[in-house]
Amino acid sequence: MENFIFHSPTKFVFGKDTEIEVGDLLNSYGAKKVLIHYGTGSIKRSGLFDRVIESLKEARIDFVELGGVVPNPRDDLVYEGIDLCKKENVDFVLAVGGGSAIDSAKAIAAGAKYDGDFWDFYDRKAKIEDALKIGVILTLPAAGSEGSASAVITNTDRMLKRGLNSSYYRPTFSIINPELTYTLPTYQTSAGVVDMMGHIFERYFTNSKNTLFVDRLAEGTLVSIMEAGKKLMNEPTNYEARSIICWAGTIAHNGFFGVGREEDWTSHRLEHELSALLDVTHGAGLAVIYPAYMKYTLNNHIKRYKRFAEKLFNINPEGKTDKEVAEAGIKALENFYESIDMPTRFAGINASEKDIPKLLKKLEENGGKSFGQFEKLTIEDAKKIYQLACE
Amino acid sequence: MENFIFHSPTKFVFGKDTEIEVGDLLNSYGAKKVLIHYGTGSIKRSGLFDRVIESLKEARIDFVELGGVVPNPRDDLVYEGIDLCKKENVDFVLAVGGGSAIDSAKAIAAGAKYDGDFWDFYDRKAKIEDALKIGVILTLPAAGSEGSASAVITNTDRMLKRGLNSSYYRPTFSIINPELTYTLPTYQTSAGVVDMMGHIFERYFTNSKNTLFVDRLAEGTLVSIMEAGKKLMNEPTNYEARSIICWAGTIAHNGFFGVGREEDWTSHRLEHELSALLDVTHGAGLAVIYPAYMKYTLNNHIKRYKRFAEKLFNINPEGKTDKEVAEAGIKALENFYESIDMPTRFAGINASEKDIPKLLKKLEENGGKSFGQFEKLTIEDAKKIYQLACE
Repeated sequence: MENFIFHSPTKFVFGKDTEIEVGDLLNSYGAKKVLIHYGTGSIKRSGLFDRVIESLKEARIDFVELGGVVPNPRDDLVYEGIDLCKKENVDFVLAVGGGSAIDSAKAIAAGAKYDGDFWDFYDRKAKIEDALKIGVILTLPAAGSEGSASAVITNTDRMLKRGLNSSYYRPTFSIINPELTYTLPTYQTSAGVVDMMGHIFERYFTNSKNTLFVDRLAEGTLVSIMEAGKKLMNEPTNYEARSIICWAGTIAHNGFFGVGREEDWTSHRLEHELSALLDVTHGAGLAVIYPAYMKYTLNNHIKRYKRFAEKLFNINPEGKTDKEVAEAGIKALENFYESIDMPTRFAGINASEKDIPKLLKKLEENGGKSFGQFEKLTIEDAKKIYQLACE
Repeated sequence: MENFIFHSPTKFVFGKDTEIEVGDLLNSYGAKKVLIHYGTGSIKRSGLFDRVIESLKEARIDFVELGGVVPNPRDDLVYEGIDLCKKENVDFVLAVGGGSAIDSAKAIAAGAKYDGDFWDFYDRKAKIEDALKIGVILTLPAAGSEGSASAVITNTDRMLKRGLNSSYYRPTFSIINPELTYTLPTYQTSAGVVDMMGHIFERYFTNSKNTLFVDRLAEGTLVSIMEAGKKLMNEPTNYEARSIICWAGTIAHNGFFGVGREEDWTSHRLEHELSALLDVTHGAGLAVIYPAYMKYTLNNHIKRYKRFAEKLFNINPEGKTDKEVAEAGIKALENFYESIDMPTRFAGINASEKDIPKLLKKLEENGGKSFGQFEKLTIEDAKKIYQLACE
C-alpha cells in the first residue's frame, strides 16, 4: 500500500424516515439560519420539502430557500446563493437533492466565506480557506457528493465544467433515506449506477502494486451495485436494492476505495467535456466513455482487465487467452450498461464524431496536453478514445 | 438494511515515516500541551519516543509523559493520568501504542473533563459529556481502538473489565505506520489478527436480513487478514502484510461492517471475563471462545455458518450436508488459529474447567442473566460454551 490519508468525517444518517431528523441534526451543530438549496421543485411536489420545513420549525431553526439547481449545476445560481447567504447571514447550507444540488451548495458555502469571485477557486487563482457548514438530504444516489470533498460546477459563459476538492466543504452530515429515491426515473437511477461504478473504476484501475485487499472490497461493491441496478429496472421500490445503491454510492466516493493506491480519473475528464458541451447526464456520458477507454488501454493492462472480467462478470478463463478474457469483461460491462438502458456509444447521447474537435479543444483548455495515471495519454489518444466511442 | 448512523470522523494518516508528522498534526488541531501516554518502554528502546519528541519540539508543543500501560489497562493508571492532565493543563492526549494505551488514554481524556470518579462512567452512574482530544500513534494493530469510540478498562480492586462507547473519545487523528509493527512478537501479531477478525465476526454473525453487500466486504477483509496473518508468521517485516493487518484492523472496528444490521458481541463478553480473571491476552482468549461459541450456536444458524465456511475457507459443499459444510468452516477457523500459534482451548491459556464458576459469576455481575443478539443466551448457555472451550 502506498501512503495515504483517509478522512471521511461526515456523519451519515441512513434509513427510513431519517429526513425528519434534520432539524435536530442542524441543532446539534449549532445552526441558526439555513439556506435550503434544491433543484427543480420535485421535492415540493413529493412533500419532502414540507417535511423538512416542519422539522426545522420544530427545532426553531430559521431558513431561506433557493431552488432551481439543474444537472451540471451552473455558476449563475451559485452567485445567487452566495449573495443570499451573505445578505441573510446564513450559517448552514442544507442541500436537498442529488450531486447537482450538493455541488452547488458546496460552491455557495465556500463562496459565502470569500470576498472575491468564487470562480477564482475553480480557476485555481485562490484557495478555499473557509466555508459554511453543509448538510445533505440525498434524493439521488450517483455523484457521492454527500460524502465527498469534491464539487463540479459549470461556467456557462465559458462552457467549462470544472471540479475542485476541498475538505472545507465536505458535508458535516448527510441524511440518506432510500425511500426518497423510489420515484426516480429509470434513466436517472441507471445513470447513478454508472456514475458510482465509475468512482470505483477510477480507483480500481491503478498501476499501484499490492492492492489486493482493497480490490476485493471494490469488487464486492461493484457486484452488489450491478445486482441492485438490474433489480431496480423492474422493482423501482425495492427498498433493499435502493439501500445498496444509496450506501454503495456514498462509499464509492468518500475515499474508501482509493486508499494505498494511485487513482486515475481519465474517463471522468473525458466525460466532463461531453457534459459541458452537450449537457449530457454525467452517468450516461460515462457509460459511453468507459468501454472505449478500456478497449483503448487494454493492451497495456491485460492482467488488470482480466481480473476485472473474472471478479465482476464471472468470465470463465478456460480456453481463452488473457486478452480474450479481458475483452469479454469489457463486453460484459457494455452489456450490463445496455441492460439498464444506458447508452454505450456517442449516438446514444446525441453526440457524433463531428463533436470531437470541440471536445478536444476544451480538454486541452482544461488541463494541458497530457493526462491520466493508469495510462499516460495525450490529446491524440483522447481523440482515438472518443472515436472508439462512436463506433 | 436496517437504519444506521455511520460516523467515523478520525483522520487516518497511514504509511511509512508518518509518525514524524505528529507535531504538525497536533498543531493543526491547536494542541498546546500534550500528555504522551504509552506502555512498558519498548517505544523508548526502539527510538520511536525520541522521534515523537523531536516532532513535538519542532512544532513547539509542550508535553508531559505517562508510561506504564499494561495489557488489559488498569484503572489505577487512569487515575494517575487524570491527575496529571488536570495539574498540567493538558489539552490533548497522545497515545503511543496499541489498544491498551489508546483505551487508557480515552478514559484519561474523559476523566480529565469530569469532576467525579471516572469509574462512574463505566458503572453507568454518569455519562461522558466532554473529553480532551485524542491522537494516536499505533504500534499494535488489534483492538481497532485507533478508530473506534470504545475503551475497555479493568478495575483491579473489583476484578472487573468493562467497556464503554463514547463519541467524545473517538480519536481525532491516528497515525498508522506499518513499519512500527515489524518488531512485534509473533504472539502479539497473531492475537491482534484474532482480535480484529473478532470485531468483524461480531457484526457478521447477525440475524438481520439483506446483509449481502456488507457481508461481501466483511468476507473480503477477513480473507485478506488471514492471508496476511499467515504470511507474517515467516516474514514479520513484510510491509504489505503488515499494511493489510493495520488497515483491516482499523476498519474492522470503526463501525464500517456494522452498518444496516444488528451486532452480537457475545463472544467478546465471554472473553472479557477470561481476560479480567486470568489476565489472558484478549486475542488469545477470543481464539478459544469463538470456535466454542460457533459450535454451540451452530444448529440455529446453519445457513450463516455455511456461507462463512464457503466464503472464508473455500469449503467445497459437494457431497456434504449444510451442517457438515458449516462444521468444516468452524474446524477450518480452528486450524487457522492454530497455524498462527493461537490457542483454541482453555488449556492453551492456562485456564481450566475449575475457572468456569468464577467466570459465570463475573459474567452475571457484569450484565444480568441473559445476553446475545445472534443467539439469545443464558448463564447456563455460557457455562456450556466455556465447557466446550475446555474439550
